[in-house]
Amino acid sequence: MLQDLFTPSVLHSLDLAGIFVFAISGALLAVRRNFDVFGMAVLAEVTALGGGLFRDLVIGAVPPAAFTDLGYFLMPLVATVLVFFLHPVVERTQAAVNVFDAAGLGLFCVAGTTKAYEYGLGLTQSAVLGLATAVGGGVLRDVLANEAPSLLRWDRDLYAVPAIVGSTLVVLFIRFEMLNPFTSALAALAAFLLRLLALRYRWRAPRAWNRRSTAVERPDEQKATA
Amino acid sequence: MLQDLFTPSVLHSLDLAGIFVFAISGALLAVRRNFDVFGMAVLAEVTALGGGLFRDLVIGAVPPAAFTDLGYFLMPLVATVLVFFLHPVVERTQAAVNVFDAAGLGLFCVAGTTKAYEYGLGLTQSAVLGLATAVGGGVLRDVLANEAPSLLRWDRDLYAVPAIVGSTLVVLFIRFEMLNPFTSALAALAAFLLRLLALRYRWRAPRAWNRRSTAVERPDEQKATA
Amino acid sequence: MLQDLFTPSVLHSLDLAGIFVFAISGALLAVRRNFDVFGMAVLAEVTALGGGLFRDLVIGAVPPAAFTDLGYFLMPLVATVLVFFLHPVVERTQAAVNVFDAAGLGLFCVAGTTKAYEYGLGLTQSAVLGLATAVGGGVLRDVLANEAPSLLRWDRDLYAVPAIVGSTLVVLFIRFEMLNPFTSALAALAAFLLRLLALRYRWRAPRAWNRRSTAVERPDEQKATA
Repeated sequence: MLQDLFTPSVLHSLDLAGIFVFAISGALLAVRRNFDVFGMAVLAEVTALGGGLFRDLVIGAVPPAAFTDLGYFLMPLVATVLVFFLHPVVERTQAAVNVFDAAGLGLFCVAGTTKAYEYGLGLTQSAVLGLATAVGGGVLRDVLANEAPSLLRWDRDLYAVPAIVGSTLVVLFIRFEMLNPFTSALAALAAFLLRLLALRYRWRAPRAWNRRSTAVERPDEQKATA
Repeated sequence: MLQDLFTPSVLHSLDLAGIFVFAISGALLAVRRNFDVFGMAVLAEVTALGGGLFRDLVIGAVPPAAFTDLGYFLMPLVATVLVFFLHPVVERTQAAVNVFDAAGLGLFCVAGTTKAYEYGLGLTQSAVLGLATAVGGGVLRDVLANEAPSLLRWDRDLYAVPAIVGSTLVVLFIRFEMLNPFTSALAALAAFLLRLLALRYRWRAPRAWNRRSTAVERPDEQKATA
Repeated sequence: MLQDLFTPSVLHSLDLAGIFVFAISGALLAVRRNFDVFGMAVLAEVTALGGGLFRDLVIGAVPPAAFTDLGYFLMPLVATVLVFFLHPVVERTQAAVNVFDAAGLGLFCVAGTTKAYEYGLGLTQSAVLGLATAVGGGVLRDVLANEAPSLLRWDRDLYAVPAIVGSTLVVLFIRFEMLNPFTSALAALAAFLLRLLALRYRWRAPRAWNRRSTAVERPDEQKATA
């Protein structure tokens, strides 16, 4: 179990760091959408805890970690306070936020895949649920903010692929009985670096072939999330 | 347990009343969004039962109360029929609906917090889940209607704060072993009155500091829910 | 149990067929909304598996079938690949897709109702959850695509009613101890044919009485999903 591999305090700190940066992205979107301070807190909580909550409901780990570990709940509130008072500064450091968010993505896909496997899911399903853990919070954030999820959109840099790579590495390591703190860190690092590269070089996923011929463009979509 | 404190029939009646008024608000939004009668019924059910359903899934109380108590399911259909035939009258009595909705808010945050604590959650987490029980249905209603949730928006009167106060009072009463029918009613009443005051005096929550400097206004949002 | 009534392989094939056609509708909407290939896969998975996932969480069947049966997960990916390369052809065969989708609707409402009853829900609740199984995936699809759910909208042909009829027939057959492979097929067939008739003759559900007098029209809604 991952819990045995790392010292619990190290793992918990990494978890809290991932939760914190995801919460920042939620609170920032709330500011952009002109929500009030409670809207900021709700989006921060949902972004940070939504993916893990979904994972825990699916594997039957109730009550979910989000409702048993007080730190998980308080961290997004800290992020909310920070963004509330300093959001112009936080926005100017968007590059830094992106780096932390990439770190959260790497950590969450590894932790999610490992926990799903521990609860008896198959290898492929564990990887899928790990991916859902990593990206689920962001999707919920965008749905609550009434926007087309950033994850699904063509005009955003690759986000799913790094998480898929991280989750896949974890299940490969499990399959060949090589999962240990070192290989876990390797998988998280791979997802982290891939995401940074995608941001740096604006990698994007293809759309359906011949799409332009029939699809209706919605230029207003760009504006909505500007 | 709250169930022991009140006579079950009184509590059940209060529950059904809360479900009814939440369902009215869902059905009215469906009318405004030009949905058909099934859309009205779905929004009524989701608004009335969504918060409790989420709570029950989180605490592992499956099947959720929404799927075991037939009255919980039928009440929103009654509200749908009423709004279907009489919605101009119901809309004219919006003030009355607001009062009932405030009563539902007070009742649901108390009942949700109590049930969460009974299922073993910590005090803080119980209060959070009580809050989620009270406001969750309205958030789901707005998401299904493809609108930015009223709960999150700056230009709406305080809704979360009254529920937070009610939930917090309940966990304080639990903490000091003072929870009984009288104090439960007191907590619900506090949330109820606070919500009425927020409506009366148009209390609003603050937005992030210096927000205007960077945020993009979306005037179309006003129109969408007019 | 339905599983005993049909040979498992026949039932599984029907399930996979239903999942496949629902996935096609999800992937097609992703193309129309200009999402990338991952957006297509996510919408395909959500549309195909979302209703059953909700049902399994409500009845406490964790991990849900969507995360235990690998075929359930892979089928939407096959649909995604197909739509990715051939979507102009698939769109031209919209009539065929509609027929398959109607078949999926019939099958899912019957399978959902039966499974809910097996897990101890009451007759009415089983029918409601069967309905939710059949229509839930489509609602999640539309929410993720940031559109008002097709299910709720007035300007769409009847979708809920055929599923309600199918679910109701199943619980009537259960009530009178007549549920067997033949009557199950009959219920699915009734829902299937009703849906085809609704498409053929553009049957629609009524909106609230006197609606026009107070409702705000949103013409932009038409455009959004054109």
